[in-house]
Amino acid sequence: MSEFSTAFPNSQKVFVDGAQGVRVPMREVALEQGQSSIRVYDTSGPQDHDVKAGLPKLREPWVRARLGTGVGASGRPTPVPNRCVTQLHYARNGEITPEMEFIAVREGLPADFVRDEVARGRAIIPSNINHLELEPMIIGRNFLVKINANIGNSAVSSSIEEEVQKLQWATLWGADTVMDLSTGKNIHETREWIIRNSAVPIGTVPIYQALEKVGGRPEDLTWEVYRDTLIEQCEQGVDYFTVHAGVLLRYIPMTARRVTGIVSRGGSIMAKWCLAHHQENFTYTHFREICEIMRAYDVSFSLGDGLRPGSIADANDEAQFAELKTQGELNRIAWAHDVQVMNEGPGHIPMHLIKENMEKQLEWCQEAPFYTLGPLTTDIAPGYDHITSAIGAAMIGWYGTAMLCYVTPKEHLGLPNRDDVKAGVIAYKIAAHAADLAKGHPRAREWDDALSKARFEFRWEDQFNLALDPVTARAYHDETLPADGAKVAHFCSMCGPKFCSMELTQQVRDYANAGMQEMSVEFRKKGEIYVTSPKQPALSE
Amino acid sequence: MSEFSTAFPNSQKVFVDGAQGVRVPMREVALEQGQSSIRVYDTSGPQDHDVKAGLPKLREPWVRARLGTGVGASGRPTPVPNRCVTQLHYARNGEITPEMEFIAVREGLPADFVRDEVARGRAIIPSNINHLELEPMIIGRNFLVKINANIGNSAVSSSIEEEVQKLQWATLWGADTVMDLSTGKNIHETREWIIRNSAVPIGTVPIYQALEKVGGRPEDLTWEVYRDTLIEQCEQGVDYFTVHAGVLLRYIPMTARRVTGIVSRGGSIMAKWCLAHHQENFTYTHFREICEIMRAYDVSFSLGDGLRPGSIADANDEAQFAELKTQGELNRIAWAHDVQVMNEGPGHIPMHLIKENMEKQLEWCQEAPFYTLGPLTTDIAPGYDHITSAIGAAMIGWYGTAMLCYVTPKEHLGLPNRDDVKAGVIAYKIAAHAADLAKGHPRAREWDDALSKARFEFRWEDQFNLALDPVTARAYHDETLPADGAKVAHFCSMCGPKFCSMELTQQVRDYANAGMQEMSVEFRKKGEIYVTSPKQPALSE
Repeated sequence: MSEFSTAFPNSQKVFVDGAQGVRVPMREVALEQGQSSIRVYDTSGPQDHDVKAGLPKLREPWVRARLGTGVGASGRPTPVPNRCVTQLHYARNGEITPEMEFIAVREGLPADFVRDEVARGRAIIPSNINHLELEPMIIGRNFLVKINANIGNSAVSSSIEEEVQKLQWATLWGADTVMDLSTGKNIHETREWIIRNSAVPIGTVPIYQALEKVGGRPEDLTWEVYRDTLIEQCEQGVDYFTVHAGVLLRYIPMTARRVTGIVSRGGSIMAKWCLAHHQENFTYTHFREICEIMRAYDVSFSLGDGLRPGSIADANDEAQFAELKTQGELNRIAWAHDVQVMNEGPGHIPMHLIKENMEKQLEWCQEAPFYTLGPLTTDIAPGYDHITSAIGAAMIGWYGTAMLCYVTPKEHLGLPNRDDVKAGVIAYKIAAHAADLAKGHPRAREWDDALSKARFEFRWEDQFNLALDPVTARAYHDETLPADGAKVAHFCSMCGPKFCSMELTQQVRDYANAGMQEMSVEFRKKGEIYVTSPKQPALSE
Repeated sequence: MSEFSTAFPNSQKVFVDGAQGVRVPMREVALEQGQSSIRVYDTSGPQDHDVKAGLPKLREPWVRARLGTGVGASGRPTPVPNRCVTQLHYARNGEITPEMEFIAVREGLPADFVRDEVARGRAIIPSNINHLELEPMIIGRNFLVKINANIGNSAVSSSIEEEVQKLQWATLWGADTVMDLSTGKNIHETREWIIRNSAVPIGTVPIYQALEKVGGRPEDLTWEVYRDTLIEQCEQGVDYFTVHAGVLLRYIPMTARRVTGIVSRGGSIMAKWCLAHHQENFTYTHFREICEIMRAYDVSFSLGDGLRPGSIADANDEAQFAELKTQGELNRIAWAHDVQVMNEGPGHIPMHLIKENMEKQLEWCQEAPFYTLGPLTTDIAPGYDHITSAIGAAMIGWYGTAMLCYVTPKEHLGLPNRDDVKAGVIAYKIAAHAADLAKGHPRAREWDDALSKARFEFRWEDQFNLALDPVTARAYHDETLPADGAKVAHFCSMCGPKFCSMELTQQVRDYANAGMQEMSVEFRKKGEIYVTSPKQPALSE
């Protein structure tokens, strides 16, 4: 039995056909007899495959068709210098790629709308030509809000197998992209396993691996080491790179009086390098060369916010906004190279300062997709930062953030285990979905309404099966009322059999319907709507 | 060892003296040597007392002084008909009661401000003259945002001992008030145990007990049974009553086409009674008599929202807002009787419709305190509704809601156990605190800043001890890095010893401070701020 069947007992994968031969997986939740099944967005990827063989190469024919003889012996395309293979390039040329068709079906939107949003730079399709296992997805504020889960080993803990399992686990519960933030041994090998087994885009922070190559000493980093690392990761199939090119030398002193200084790893590495050499950030000075490399593979930028605030005290300060403005400048350079780009955002922000982040990003970064970490709305709850940040994530998602980077309960304390990854993903699915509802996405409402209706009609099984996490919902119910009979009962443990508001309401409704008709007759006779009628029969229990 | 010491290992209760001899408990968190301790609001009440004897009667001298010979043999005051003993009455007469002095110290605000907010009806101090064990607290939007936890047995499950333990447990973690929603056997006795052991205000929904008295048949309810139940509960010392007086006969048909009809228990009971008799709601028609009873004991109204939406689909509809307007009308009647009043609010509301609830309540209800249940921002996550609702609760708290009624992970599924109560309280402490931060409460910021600073300075013990839940924070840390040495280490398990952004930042800061001075000299010589200096020495690791 696959993890999919265990996690979603009454669901199955179905495939919806689209133009250009695309077949898009959806999760179909079967309901009780007489109720229409519901299809929901599915990120879980192909199940029960051999991890050593990797996933089927869904995109191989599409990429091959575009690149012709550019596919090498390994089955992977070989990049041709100066060739542009980005989705942005095709979109700007008016072309609808199979990736766009796939996304159109997945999102329930016209393919030309997908293309136009990509062409405008308002959405990206992270899809390295060497990541053939990918089920294409889109990040942009006119689409469903997406979530990212971070995995990755560190010097202290965890193994390759664990990381692949975390990938599968995170996407099972709904992660739309996964970032491999490995910093310890075997970075290359870990990433290879992850990409070959991932149906979602994989992002990385290449400076982490570059740093390993120079023995962990930031001041020993060079442009050449970094460039070679980019090419190595492009070859493997990484779909987006976090590049902290906005951490400029002149912004670093702005952080000196902060409560929590620089908390981004990438940001502090670049800052250390800049100060050690007293030179400008080499990812900034070489930004055009980076664009050329990424263009040859269609790797998207995720422009890092290396100076993001690490606490409520530092939110929306000079350093943070200086870097955001530079992100906007870099967006324009990326677009000039036909390279897709999104912008990373904070972090730790109290509720009343969240909107300003979105507004400035839209203005300064010309509506490129925003991708935020939370933000956490308070710092007093380590151990519960999936909640402190889900609040901020839901709000900024509503305001227009396209992707939300999850935070697990272990944030600030330790490495997330399997339970933590699930807790983080579920909290962020809630935040993203709440944002979709608030933005008025019609497919979002359909899911809520189906569950609300099941709840009101005491279809307990349907209520469990429609839940984000059916097994947990059922287990919580069964703790109080384990008998199978309770699942068809028209009451629940909160009120007991004689005292149920749902049950009462149904009687009120029946009564009101009957009563209104009767009263309607009275009304026509007497010219008033309500007539006291003490002989009205009592409702039956 | 008390539960308090177990839950908060490095905290102790301290008492802060105020005017009129009040002594206000605070929780003082001791930090590492050289760091000032932090005091936080404390709701845990006296510890380690004999449950059978009940808590010390803190308010006895205050109430006795006001009522003179009105204290009977039981030690409880005996109410005098037509006497007005409400905090609103005293406030309007310009009097600052010991309760107000206590609150002034607790909130860090002037006592005359407390009095003026109560006099204006913008805040309430729920404090029955027969609840002498109470540590007074205030509910109003110009004070700290409060949270309520629901407990109570039902026909299906739980015992008296369990309920008292849930009370102690909920207040230990931060519940500011507790509602006893018992509906099964022994309602009176359960409540007696709860009140005698509660340092926080206790709220009830008296219609639940009245319904038990008539065998669970709503149509058999009478004004007399209800009135006698009110008096019984007033005598026991209940501090606030949920009264669904806004569920008017003419509003009931407005719910007939809803997806989830009427979901409030109290609302559906009243609706059933109204329809069965085809008469107006007796709590509406007898509202002035109810005011007179409550005035004699200083019980506050919590005007119920019996027609609140039970799903996203039903949010902000005609029925809901019709009742809210009637709540405003009833507020004015309560105030005319010198009775304190707050208004209950929803429920299930998508994010973009939350603000409208607050705005209409402020306008129609003349700024009486708003007390909302969540609201849940999506319906798709049963099992995680503490999170779906913490999002809405934080937002509406920021907008001006004075008290947030918690939701546990078991909402819609079963009765909360000890873990669920804690999960609900913690999620709501986060929401309330995030709202306090967003509203700019200075004491809120102080706590965040202390924790952020401890984090940045690698004071691990301080970081744990300052957390809302210190034991969980420590346990999560120890899962990855259990050694005691790791708690003084300048790194953590996320990045490992060689690769820590916090560590790097400190170096950057030291460097920047030194470098800026040096450059400042250079600047004066050459007239430019930054000078490339390739001979700058590398930072030491």
